[in-house]
Amino acid sequence: MKALITTVPFGDKNRLPLELLESAGIEYLINPLNKKLTEYELADLVTDFDIIIAGTEPITDRVMEQATNLKMISRVGIGLDSVDLLAAERRGIKISYTPDAPAPAVAELTIGLLITLLRSVHLSNLKMHDGKWNRYFGRRIANTTIGVIGLGRIGTRVLNRIPVFGTPRLLVNDLSPNSELDRKYKLEWVDKETIYREADVISLHVPLTKATKNMITKKHLQMMKSDAIIINTCRGGIINEDDLYEVMQAGHLSGASIDVFEQEPYNGKLNEIERCLLTAHMGSMSIDCRTRMEIEATEEAVRFSLGDPLEGEVPEEEYTVQREGL
Amino acid sequence: MKALITTVPFGDKNRLPLELLESAGIEYLINPLNKKLTEYELADLVTDFDIIIAGTEPITDRVMEQATNLKMISRVGIGLDSVDLLAAERRGIKISYTPDAPAPAVAELTIGLLITLLRSVHLSNLKMHDGKWNRYFGRRIANTTIGVIGLGRIGTRVLNRIPVFGTPRLLVNDLSPNSELDRKYKLEWVDKETIYREADVISLHVPLTKATKNMITKKHLQMMKSDAIIINTCRGGIINEDDLYEVMQAGHLSGASIDVFEQEPYNGKLNEIERCLLTAHMGSMSIDCRTRMEIEATEEAVRFSLGDPLEGEVPEEEYTVQREGL
Repeated sequence: MKALITTVPFGDKNRLPLELLESAGIEYLINPLNKKLTEYELADLVTDFDIIIAGTEPITDRVMEQATNLKMISRVGIGLDSVDLLAAERRGIKISYTPDAPAPAVAELTIGLLITLLRSVHLSNLKMHDGKWNRYFGRRIANTTIGVIGLGRIGTRVLNRIPVFGTPRLLVNDLSPNSELDRKYKLEWVDKETIYREADVISLHVPLTKATKNMITKKHLQMMKSDAIIINTCRGGIINEDDLYEVMQAGHLSGASIDVFEQEPYNGKLNEIERCLLTAHMGSMSIDCRTRMEIEATEEAVRFSLGDPLEGEVPEEEYTVQREGL
Repeated sequence: MKALITTVPFGDKNRLPLELLESAGIEYLINPLNKKLTEYELADLVTDFDIIIAGTEPITDRVMEQATNLKMISRVGIGLDSVDLLAAERRGIKISYTPDAPAPAVAELTIGLLITLLRSVHLSNLKMHDGKWNRYFGRRIANTTIGVIGLGRIGTRVLNRIPVFGTPRLLVNDLSPNSELDRKYKLEWVDKETIYREADVISLHVPLTKATKNMITKKHLQMMKSDAIIINTCRGGIINEDDLYEVMQAGHLSGASIDVFEQEPYNGKLNEIERCLLTAHMGSMSIDCRTRMEIEATEEAVRFSLGDPLEGEVPEEEYTVQREGL
């Protein structure tokens, strides 16, 4: 069998995933463009591969049409917005993912970004390197109202890491309330608008679906407190980037931390805004989590090639999300 | 009575400290130079004041010589390195401080800086604003060896905030081991050299004394792992700045976070080093902690002016430290 590895870097800090493929006799090609592929680039590359060990590049119906040998997609990570699950299902292409591996790294980074924004570390660092001494006032987590939208694997872990810093007011929103979390923390389950209006810090941990695409536009941003902070470590496209630019350029919001973008690599207008903390989709980029994701996705590809039972198959509800446009 | 308020900003986010002085009939002057005063500037300003509500500017024997009315120094904060306690004692000048107020803000910032450095957030932000997409690999706290030097009010709080992120190896150093902490955490009490040699992250939480001045010089920095990270949120002068510059310029250490400097405002060579995260002495600059520090220091000054018993007098062991050059 032949595997196309589209996600980069891959096997960089730990060669084990590549060795697993080699031992299983799977030929592989690592993305020769060394960047996130566009739909056309992927369609050109994918023609005779049996397996894609995939990042977040678009694996659409048209890509699959070109990939006449394709039998399996093994996603390195959790989000499935990039894969047309229904097209894959029609063609009998199996899809697996690694939903648990990235969560601790994303949650930890989110806490770091939160403190950075609350204390203006990024702004002070910029000024200092420019020879300017500005002592910014900040806030401690304990003295804010934090709104978490999406309490899945990552949102829950973010929540778990907050109480050690004190007891902020916690506003949360998810499709269904979680009684286990209610036993642990004093949570206010509210609608998203309440979070937009009342939170000092808003952190997003939802998947990208038809329902969450452009979930936050100008109208929602303007509802937020003038000194609110927003953090997006989940998926680009959930906050409308043009609207965020416009609203922040006009002086609204005290800060934003954007790790994910509609188009990656990102090189857009948010670059112009100093109080917008920008990172290059690094949520899961801790060596341990990244390695675990690569190994899990590779092991799954090896299982497939051997005809062994899969362990990370995407569950039915993910297909339902795409089928029903949730 | 007349009070000189040297620390700036003061009464900025909350006017209560100024109102307390006004109600007590204490005349006050807020530092008209609006920056950290030098010894000479302070000596010129201080001549007829009874009380200094002080920041970290040098209150030396020569300053006190000019301050013929000076009867009390109320430090907004914890460090006493800036005050010649023995000279004050000889002149019968009372000294109070606010040792507990800054600790939660400093500890929380330290965790934020730690995650920022481990994940190269500052570097990615810099590149992104320059239109460059670099996905940096990082480490999670759980997969590092963390060395904490100094387990007083702040170091202990930093330690308390770590386990929620997992269980790194914890190397600690203090003048005397703390059995309460030993019951809570698996700590290795080691000498400082062991921390320099074995830690991936080194965080400093010691006071500035004769014994800690230049505690970390070129020799110690070179002992550290080539990809070690060092964080100084305690006092400038503990890491020799020239040595840190030289060693980092040569490519050693993966990052440093420096919030405190020998001379503040700082505008020195560390500015040239991108992987050196620089902030403007902002450890205690959360609105709540700063306000609490200002109020506590002001209340103490008011108590003094009324002849009431003081509540924040500097304990005898601080005098011993200076007397014995510890």
